[in-house]
Amino acid sequence: MAVAEIVITPLGTGSPSLSAYVAKVHKVLEESGLKYQLTPMGTIVEGDVDKIFEVTRKMHEVLFKEGIQRVVTSLRVDDRRDKQLTMEGKVRAVMEKLK
Amino acid sequence: MAVAEIVITPLGTGSPSLSAYVAKVHKVLEESGLKYQLTPMGTIVEGDVDKIFEVTRKMHEVLFKEGIQRVVTSLRVDDRRDKQLTMEGKVRAVMEKLK
Amino acid sequence: MAVAEIVITPLGTGSPSLSAYVAKVHKVLEESGLKYQLTPMGTIVEGDVDKIFEVTRKMHEVLFKEGIQRVVTSLRVDDRRDKQLTMEGKVRAVMEKLK
Amino acid sequence: MAVAEIVITPLGTGSPSLSAYVAKVHKVLEESGLKYQLTPMGTIVEGDVDKIFEVTRKMHEVLFKEGIQRVVTSLRVDDRRDKQLTMEGKVRAVMEKLK
Repeated sequence: MAVAEIVITPLGTGSPSLSAYVAKVHKVLEESGLKYQLTPMGTIVEGDVDKIFEVTRKMHEVLFKEGIQRVVTSLRVDDRRDKQLTMEGKVRAVMEKLK
Repeated sequence: MAVAEIVITPLGTGSPSLSAYVAKVHKVLEESGLKYQLTPMGTIVEGDVDKIFEVTRKMHEVLFKEGIQRVVTSLRVDDRRDKQLTMEGKVRAVMEKLK
Repeated sequence: MAVAEIVITPLGTGSPSLSAYVAKVHKVLEESGLKYQLTPMGTIVEGDVDKIFEVTRKMHEVLFKEGIQRVVTSLRVDDRRDKQLTMEGKVRAVMEKLK
Repeated sequence: MAVAEIVITPLGTGSPSLSAYVAKVHKVLEESGLKYQLTPMGTIVEGDVDKIFEVTRKMHEVLFKEGIQRVVTSLRVDDRRDKQLTMEGKVRAVMEKLK
């Protein structure tokens, strides 16, 4: 189990609005079974590392089918093996130290 | 006004647990006056672009004072000038398209 | 064909020196058949997108076998379908405009 | 002294070609006095940390003056205080271990 951030950026779209593209990519995520959270700067997922790579690969492909010619996809995987990382646990660990 | 993600990573700490470091860096953020949100993969802020750079620079310095010898700081600024970006507005725009 | 940047960061190693770890991860890359270039901030590769994801997944695993408990892996894929991106072509395109 | 990677991405340009924009941003870098290296995935700089933040802030502004409405700027600073990091030294340290 790992926690990861995925950011899919279509380039050259002709408009500075990207939310419609983000929504299209999100449908792949909904069907993936991965736990996820949409943030103002990307999407955070939690789950099996192989699955995270596989789902990111699929998300990367979505916008080419919509006619986009260039996509930059960023994946950042935080993987810890001595202890199980979860989205909720990572935030809680910091919050506890902030008290 | 822009929305940005900041990630501060201390290297060579000797333990895979980093939440105590994240909490220390967070105090700078609390005093900054920037609107912010802690996520499982970093911190998202909203505010004036100059201020975001200035606060990130300060956050970068915190862990050296704690004896850490190497820090990797990532800043990703999303800045839109035809329309005001906010953390909440960015997520809402996607959610509306997902309906 | 795409161009991508891969950064593998072991956390909690106990020393700020990471080059020995980077070298270990690099061996997977040498055996991969992907064209690559080591930079001061990561490794840049060029090749088939599926292959890039597959090789990054393998690189991510290397340091756990060396006893590291936490690894952050970043992959940023720049994929253009109307024209073939290459490492050399991307730099040359900018250099020509700088003249 | 630190080593950093800077990536400036204009969004909504209408064309998947971005090299002309990258070249425009590069002029700020040339005038900055920072040592730099253009890679296929961004620009790597070496120098004083304050200067790196200051120059990145200036680079971020360039494309708005060219009529671009949205720019995503990424800065990743690798800063080590027990030893001087340089672009050349970082690559050499890995190459020596690969022999």
